[in-house]
Amino acid sequence: MLFNNEQLLQSDLFDRLSIDTARRLATLARRRVYVPGEEIFAEGEPGTHVVYVASGVVRLTRTESSGRDADIRVCEPGDFIAEYVIVLGGNYAHGACAGALSELALFEAAALRTLVDKCPQLQRNLLKISAHHLLEAFDCIAGDRLHMAAQRVANFLLRQCPETALQATFRLPYKKQILAGKLGLGPEALSRAFAALAQRGVDVKGRTVRIENVVLLRQVC
Amino acid sequence: MLFNNEQLLQSDLFDRLSIDTARRLATLARRRVYVPGEEIFAEGEPGTHVVYVASGVVRLTRTESSGRDADIRVCEPGDFIAEYVIVLGGNYAHGACAGALSELALFEAAALRTLVDKCPQLQRNLLKISAHHLLEAFDCIAGDRLHMAAQRVANFLLRQCPETALQATFRLPYKKQILAGKLGLGPEALSRAFAALAQRGVDVKGRTVRIENVVLLRQVC
Repeated sequence: MLFNNEQLLQSDLFDRLSIDTARRLATLARRRVYVPGEEIFAEGEPGTHVVYVASGVVRLTRTESSGRDADIRVCEPGDFIAEYVIVLGGNYAHGACAGALSELALFEAAALRTLVDKCPQLQRNLLKISAHHLLEAFDCIAGDRLHMAAQRVANFLLRQCPETALQATFRLPYKKQILAGKLGLGPEALSRAFAALAQRGVDVKGRTVRIENVVLLRQVC
Repeated sequence: MLFNNEQLLQSDLFDRLSIDTARRLATLARRRVYVPGEEIFAEGEPGTHVVYVASGVVRLTRTESSGRDADIRVCEPGDFIAEYVIVLGGNYAHGACAGALSELALFEAAALRTLVDKCPQLQRNLLKISAHHLLEAFDCIAGDRLHMAAQRVANFLLRQCPETALQATFRLPYKKQILAGKLGLGPEALSRAFAALAQRGVDVKGRTVRIENVVLLRQVC
């Protein structure tokens, strides 16, 4: 029972629901903590749950027959995962595993589907979540196809800076290995990109990033 | 007025609508033919329409400041475009241009939004369309990240073959230049991939493709 979880109640899924629907929706959620590397579900398994990330980070992955895998999305706190199973049914189109210690809320898909069928506002919320995910995926495809490694990294770092900042220091939201996967890069390509960006005043120590000159960095993009 | 267009009436958008809603929805559609290369809308323009592809092919593109562009999706007959503007409002997240002589139906977004708000089934149909687009986008990201050029082309060709075929001859559904963009390849990389696949019994003459041995080609993937 997650009805007291303010963060979840303020998520896109609960937007503008009646108290009654919000209460019923909250009772569908089961809270669970996953340790780093733990599988949440496997690609091709029956899609039994929609997942909300309360904390931590979740990698969505695709694996090919040779066993090689690639991240197709990295989910952060506030994100929903696999909402498509509500309307399409069927199996998960990707695997999901925790990239860090992560607290998740799992909504049983069949019960959520029943509630969605009764509540147009809940359906509208799912549509909004799905539309946001589609635009994110378009960003990802465009980034992969238009940008070299250093540009992808520079774009990511700039999105972490406050909008008007001229300098910035921040902590990467997850391990470099996960950042590499998110940006469609191997770990070596990420290291080379950081080395190239050092000339533009980007200093990376562990997960701490210092950007000397945001304007200079923007010129890379 | 497109109410007599059987193809559109059988599309995902019209699925299980009442006669009355289907009639109203059909009156929102404006039919228009675009010539090859003609712009349908530009990236960043206000999202005023949802578009249905009745015939032809439409490239969805992203352009960066330097003017370089990339295809992020190639739409074929039966596809809807930019359904996200109904729920998110705002601007088009990409440009759209005709890749061949194309007949489109344009639905005015504001009027469609009003109808969607009144009809949960229409909203459900949009959700289904959006979910399908998301899974397609995931396929695209995974293909770009996991597969070399020849594998991407082989996968595309195999999807054109009847499921149980051992040999197949077919016409590419659009020009090679558009196929290259769809697969995230430059025209030269596509040519090299076709040359590599010739050793696996793939013969390409103009837009006609002959696959000698489907099983052999499957081994490339």
